[in-house]
Amino acid sequence: MAAGKGTRMKSKKPKVLHTIAGRPLLKHVLDTAAALLAQKVVVITGHGAMEVEAACATSTGAAADFSLNFVRQEPQLGTGHAVQQAVPALSDDSVVVVLSGDVPLTQADTLFHLIKASGGHQLALLTLEQADPTGYGRIVRAQASADADGAVQAIVEHKDATPEQRRITEIYSGIMAVPAAQLKRWLARLDNKNAQAEYYLTDIVKFAVADGVPVVGYKITDAVQVAGVNSPVQLAELERAYQLQQAHRLMEEGVRLADPARLDVRGDLLCAHDVSIDVNCVFEGQVSLGEGVSIGANCVIANAVIEAGAVIHPFTHIDGEKLGVTVGAGALIGPFARLRPGARLGAEVHIGNFVEVKNSTLAKGAKANHLAYLGDATVGERVNFGAGAITANYDGSNKHRTVIEADVHVGSNSVLVAPLTLGAGGTVGGGSTVTKDTPAGALTVARGKQVSIADWARPQKIAR
Amino acid sequence: MAAGKGTRMKSKKPKVLHTIAGRPLLKHVLDTAAALLAQKVVVITGHGAMEVEAACATSTGAAADFSLNFVRQEPQLGTGHAVQQAVPALSDDSVVVVLSGDVPLTQADTLFHLIKASGGHQLALLTLEQADPTGYGRIVRAQASADADGAVQAIVEHKDATPEQRRITEIYSGIMAVPAAQLKRWLARLDNKNAQAEYYLTDIVKFAVADGVPVVGYKITDAVQVAGVNSPVQLAELERAYQLQQAHRLMEEGVRLADPARLDVRGDLLCAHDVSIDVNCVFEGQVSLGEGVSIGANCVIANAVIEAGAVIHPFTHIDGEKLGVTVGAGALIGPFARLRPGARLGAEVHIGNFVEVKNSTLAKGAKANHLAYLGDATVGERVNFGAGAITANYDGSNKHRTVIEADVHVGSNSVLVAPLTLGAGGTVGGGSTVTKDTPAGALTVARGKQVSIADWARPQKIAR
Amino acid sequence: MAAGKGTRMKSKKPKVLHTIAGRPLLKHVLDTAAALLAQKVVVITGHGAMEVEAACATSTGAAADFSLNFVRQEPQLGTGHAVQQAVPALSDDSVVVVLSGDVPLTQADTLFHLIKASGGHQLALLTLEQADPTGYGRIVRAQASADADGAVQAIVEHKDATPEQRRITEIYSGIMAVPAAQLKRWLARLDNKNAQAEYYLTDIVKFAVADGVPVVGYKITDAVQVAGVNSPVQLAELERAYQLQQAHRLMEEGVRLADPARLDVRGDLLCAHDVSIDVNCVFEGQVSLGEGVSIGANCVIANAVIEAGAVIHPFTHIDGEKLGVTVGAGALIGPFARLRPGARLGAEVHIGNFVEVKNSTLAKGAKANHLAYLGDATVGERVNFGAGAITANYDGSNKHRTVIEADVHVGSNSVLVAPLTLGAGGTVGGGSTVTKDTPAGALTVARGKQVSIADWARPQKIAR
Repeated sequence: MAAGKGTRMKSKKPKVLHTIAGRPLLKHVLDTAAALLAQKVVVITGHGAMEVEAACATSTGAAADFSLNFVRQEPQLGTGHAVQQAVPALSDDSVVVVLSGDVPLTQADTLFHLIKASGGHQLALLTLEQADPTGYGRIVRAQASADADGAVQAIVEHKDATPEQRRITEIYSGIMAVPAAQLKRWLARLDNKNAQAEYYLTDIVKFAVADGVPVVGYKITDAVQVAGVNSPVQLAELERAYQLQQAHRLMEEGVRLADPARLDVRGDLLCAHDVSIDVNCVFEGQVSLGEGVSIGANCVIANAVIEAGAVIHPFTHIDGEKLGVTVGAGALIGPFARLRPGARLGAEVHIGNFVEVKNSTLAKGAKANHLAYLGDATVGERVNFGAGAITANYDGSNKHRTVIEADVHVGSNSVLVAPLTLGAGGTVGGGSTVTKDTPAGALTVARGKQVSIADWARPQKIAR
Repeated sequence: MAAGKGTRMKSKKPKVLHTIAGRPLLKHVLDTAAALLAQKVVVITGHGAMEVEAACATSTGAAADFSLNFVRQEPQLGTGHAVQQAVPALSDDSVVVVLSGDVPLTQADTLFHLIKASGGHQLALLTLEQADPTGYGRIVRAQASADADGAVQAIVEHKDATPEQRRITEIYSGIMAVPAAQLKRWLARLDNKNAQAEYYLTDIVKFAVADGVPVVGYKITDAVQVAGVNSPVQLAELERAYQLQQAHRLMEEGVRLADPARLDVRGDLLCAHDVSIDVNCVFEGQVSLGEGVSIGANCVIANAVIEAGAVIHPFTHIDGEKLGVTVGAGALIGPFARLRPGARLGAEVHIGNFVEVKNSTLAKGAKANHLAYLGDATVGERVNFGAGAITANYDGSNKHRTVIEADVHVGSNSVLVAPLTLGAGGTVGGGSTVTKDTPAGALTVARGKQVSIADWARPQKIAR
Repeated sequence: MAAGKGTRMKSKKPKVLHTIAGRPLLKHVLDTAAALLAQKVVVITGHGAMEVEAACATSTGAAADFSLNFVRQEPQLGTGHAVQQAVPALSDDSVVVVLSGDVPLTQADTLFHLIKASGGHQLALLTLEQADPTGYGRIVRAQASADADGAVQAIVEHKDATPEQRRITEIYSGIMAVPAAQLKRWLARLDNKNAQAEYYLTDIVKFAVADGVPVVGYKITDAVQVAGVNSPVQLAELERAYQLQQAHRLMEEGVRLADPARLDVRGDLLCAHDVSIDVNCVFEGQVSLGEGVSIGANCVIANAVIEAGAVIHPFTHIDGEKLGVTVGAGALIGPFARLRPGARLGAEVHIGNFVEVKNSTLAKGAKANHLAYLGDATVGERVNFGAGAITANYDGSNKHRTVIEADVHVGSNSVLVAPLTLGAGGTVGGGSTVTKDTPAGALTVARGKQVSIADWARPQKIAR
């Protein structure tokens, strides 16, 4: 179900496209369906249907083998009405799991147990034990036997509950597993004779009881798994819950986190042994950290492979976007470094403060330690790219390549006007603007003669 | 009351001038008085009186229509003595609300109800329901009627309370509303015959009871509203409580926050629809964010207007101070950008990493993407300001303006020595130092000839 | 005891070398021993013994007067077996305190009371009152007298406890103080006839009881003090507990913290009066902040002395490493500044955005406000080091010094090729590459002549 508007989100974006960990809520639910090896997923859209359908088509997460179908619910006449729209797409011999597109953090394992509880022929409800159930629909069960909870007899809304029923702390989560054939029969019997004039999916429970079909409740205690998002406050709560889960998962794998409450992982973060991550870091997309990698405080790292033993100092920004970024083994990066798409740094490369690298390859041991820009460059081993040196890769219309062969030293505040090749072992004098290829082994300078004007009078401060 | 020293603050600054959200405690209280439409505010000063009075005069918050008066309490002989100093300034027909300058987070709505409870003729006490009231003065009430709490009969200090009274969980907050005429009479009857030899304002409760004036208690449950600041620990607690309140208010308005616990707003943050703010951002002064604006992680933004659709990447520092900063619609800023006072960026301007902009206007589509300084410049549409390019706006004594007309391309590591005008559509070659105006459409270069010295021997490492 | 492997840490590093606040767990324990004025410390090593022993030798913390001894426990046959290894190193007339190298946060004061409780002749156990004692060994005591807890009669393991014993909430912490002579006798009587086939140190309790030696329990309620580290999750929990303790200690001293939960101090942070620290700062090593110093958001500061009234703006990175960094009184640093080892900044120095200073001395009032690198430089009073200016201190093999005398103005994007001296009061024109000393008071330029080529056709975009 992904048809709701989400008025309380106060956003133009359909509710199910709001994100947890950078991923739309609905995508989290589809990922869960994929993890369950669902054969067919029917997404019921409504508000912003085209936008929602388009978003589903660009999934970049878990590979899903299911067939993806969309049905529209217009207008929205309740949860039962929503599922009715899906009926034509459901084959009679399947088990249907009804999920909400705005309930993102249900674990596949939980749903697996729910499906198992349905046994393919019973109605299975996912229920939650909640300390304060006020306002929620209570699960009324038959007397429990010695070894099992009693069968569910009804879901009773809070306002309709007797004082005794109100003491029940087991509530309905909104998630169920139900054999398709029976679901279809029961949906056909729904009516909207209630205060809201809506068709309620939960009404099928009474039909099941009436038909003698057992209704089982599979109970969990982790409220986060069934929590829905109706407002930015709830969105932020689930974001933090999800991030803490990820932090704990990483720590269980051996990652050392300076502060689990100050880590954000939006995508997949793979860590080898003995990785440490300092406070307040953000990871996005696909990031892989090799053995012994150390990430300093306040780093933002996306779509990058960082090899063993590399040290990323604080305030480093890496984003490989589609091209990716590679940081070689034992490299030292930052502080205040920025690596952009296509930066390929070899082993023991050093990139220092206020240095930007874009679409450039640096071979082993190359260094750019201060205030530099390397764009569209191929840099050889042991090159030293001086402070303030810049590759002028853009002529105003096109981008050109700079090749700096091994062991070249590029002087401070030089400009290398591409296309250009600096021959191996050469030196470029500080302050030079190099526009032509340079010979290997040579010193190249391109600068004016130094002249001093004695006793020069500096301009005077003008009174205003 | 703003006379206390605040010894536990261990600071030279008077206690009421310590800040929550960048604003002195006392200013928060004055803002609340302004929101209540108070006619007259009397600030009772003592320790650091001159500093406190000066600070009040520079209010930059809610416009206050009240007349502001100061009285000095020297020496400090108790809360009753403090209010006695204010007596000459109080007109008999008014209702006096007694507030503490170190209790910053009382809501105006609460005080409005308190004043209403006084009815203009009763003594109204603001009380707090507190789970553990140990140590606090208890509110002793008469038997409650069916539809109202009982009248207050006394405030009993913890140490004087009977075991039964100690079970009372309603305590006095220190805040009251009282008709001025009666307050004056009661203040005149205070004495200091107690262990501390101080004049206690709370003693007026017994005079009210004795005089047959009803004493009403207006009870709240939110301890933050009546919490005082006596130490840096308490200051930090209220700072976080206040920041969480602001985060929730913003989320209720539709702002998406990646982590409500990692947001600091010190001033006024106005957000249009669909604004998202990543972790660990700080906002100061007057900041306005247009529709769809996205603020990346770890930004510090002060005194700025950011228009619709602009994207502020992580690690961006913006501070407009008095001149302000404007970022146009759809602009892309950062990471590692700094916008200083008077930066006026048009639509779709790009300011990239390690770029500083100060007192400069950039027209639509202008770009400065890498390692650049734009100071006192007027930059036309579509200008590309190359990597490492710098406006030399300061001759050591005066600042001068650089005008870069539309469509100019400024080469990498150029220096533009102001005053200077670069004609429209011109190009400045990389590494040039431009000291004279350049013609429109021309290529201008100012650099030395490139010369290579073959087989140059690089200096040898000197053994030490 | 520091012999354990720490399998759950999933690390190559021995468990006791994992760090809290940047300091190995074992070092915390040794610091505590030093604070107790221990005469001799015997470290029982096992897994990673050589690494552990080497780490102990490089202590940089509290000066310890004790003799440090190592014994190896190989293989590891239980806690009793561990202590048996230490027996030869223990003199009979001493009191032995048995500590775990993975329990880092026990306070010296607690141990002082524990030793006092042993009285030099009794067995004293450190115990913890714990709300949920499930799984822990319970402290079974004799009937308490009117003025004292009862003597300890036994430690009963959870699985062996009677229902009544399971209701006991006092548990054994793993820490004891015991007279050496008795300890030796009891250790000799240990056996490993138990399910784990290990020698348990706790078995000495029953020998003490059997011998009629009083066993006293010294009880605390602060679980953090006796919490051990067995996993990255526990490591992170203690890290945060420790950091919050430090934050509160600093606030008690008068430091104003914007958010105590977002402060990390790894080393010693000394603060004078009226210091304020904004959110998300990290301090490492030895840092001293003078009166009125203000540290902005997101700073990382290590091994530095910051003098009174200096303002450190957000995003500043300072690390003095072994040489240290000094920031003079009233200096303004940042945002986005980096101070490296040997930066010595005088009073009122300004270092602005994207500026790096390394191994350089700046006299009073010198300024480098934008995009600059000062390495191996000596900078006189009131020097203005322009935007983009760079000291070329490295000739590819050796580093050289740049001397900039008082009142020099260095133009934008200049390069100063060291070794070099700029005479007092001189000016270097923007874009100059200075390779020879310059006369005092002179204007020095070194740049090409400005030439414009009219109607130059910019390269055309190449279709791809």
